[in-house]
Amino acid sequence: MAETIRIIGIDPGLRRTGWGIVETCGNTLRFVGAGTVVSDAKADLASRLCALHDGLAAIIHAEMPDEAAVEQTFVNKDAVATLKLGQARGIAMLVPAKAGLRVSEYAPNAVKKSVIGVGHGDKKQIHMMVKVLMPRAVFDTDDAADALAIAICHAHHRQSVTGRLAAAAARVA
Amino acid sequence: MAETIRIIGIDPGLRRTGWGIVETCGNTLRFVGAGTVVSDAKADLASRLCALHDGLAAIIHAEMPDEAAVEQTFVNKDAVATLKLGQARGIAMLVPAKAGLRVSEYAPNAVKKSVIGVGHGDKKQIHMMVKVLMPRAVFDTDDAADALAIAICHAHHRQSVTGRLAAAAARVA
Repeated sequence: MAETIRIIGIDPGLRRTGWGIVETCGNTLRFVGAGTVVSDAKADLASRLCALHDGLAAIIHAEMPDEAAVEQTFVNKDAVATLKLGQARGIAMLVPAKAGLRVSEYAPNAVKKSVIGVGHGDKKQIHMMVKVLMPRAVFDTDDAADALAIAICHAHHRQSVTGRLAAAAARVA
Repeated sequence: MAETIRIIGIDPGLRRTGWGIVETCGNTLRFVGAGTVVSDAKADLASRLCALHDGLAAIIHAEMPDEAAVEQTFVNKDAVATLKLGQARGIAMLVPAKAGLRVSEYAPNAVKKSVIGVGHGDKKQIHMMVKVLMPRAVFDTDDAADALAIAICHAHHRQSVTGRLAAAAARVA
């Protein structure tokens, strides 16, 4: 029987960090939860990073995922925006790692390819496919939907890695 | 009698994060310690961020500074380097904030102005002036010396803020 693995996907952002949790077992996907951790734009940077840290830590503590996946954000904005994103992304990588989870990174086109079948597409298509793949999925923001897409991407990739390892083991045996 | 305040300055970087601790009391500056937290360039990003986190957390736990200052890094490199720096900087801001320290940010030219008197100058001048201001200072890397300069900058600025507050209080009284 295939093992059930609970995955948290994280879409980092200083203002809004989306999170989405799915369970995968063999070829099945099950929606567990999704949401957004926000930080107060008027607060100082250290407090905002603490808010992201504490929000993500509370979700991981409550939902106990087994593995984490974070988007390897494509950088096409100005340097100030990139630095801000980097700071939020540092927290998004740190929190699951400190909780003992393996943290995988996926490029945006890998996420799109996993969810809509091709490496390009707009947010609307991604959100629609998240609903097709998991009809019970509910998400309050674009960031939460993106986080679910990242979790789905990891569910696909970890399975193919496991499949390849099993095939390699079978060849050796 | 003036209060003694222990300040940690942090110069963030993914490969090497410098730290330097000084004590300030009135107009005096005292060197406490300095060093560098390194992360293994071959390790995955999440592990590297954990290494920076754990290294800084251990220093703050051992040295118990009262306040923290982090350089507001000037961004002039490519986007990938900026994103990397941002991730390290997120950790450098988070760790002292989670330990309950107030975290101040200073632009590089403010740091230079505090240490060498003008807003421009090379690393050599900064390091020389750190030694002039605190003859007992020892530092193993450029990053540790820069971190001490950031701590000195905060010592100057917090004093002038305190001075202004005292002056304002005197005017009100």
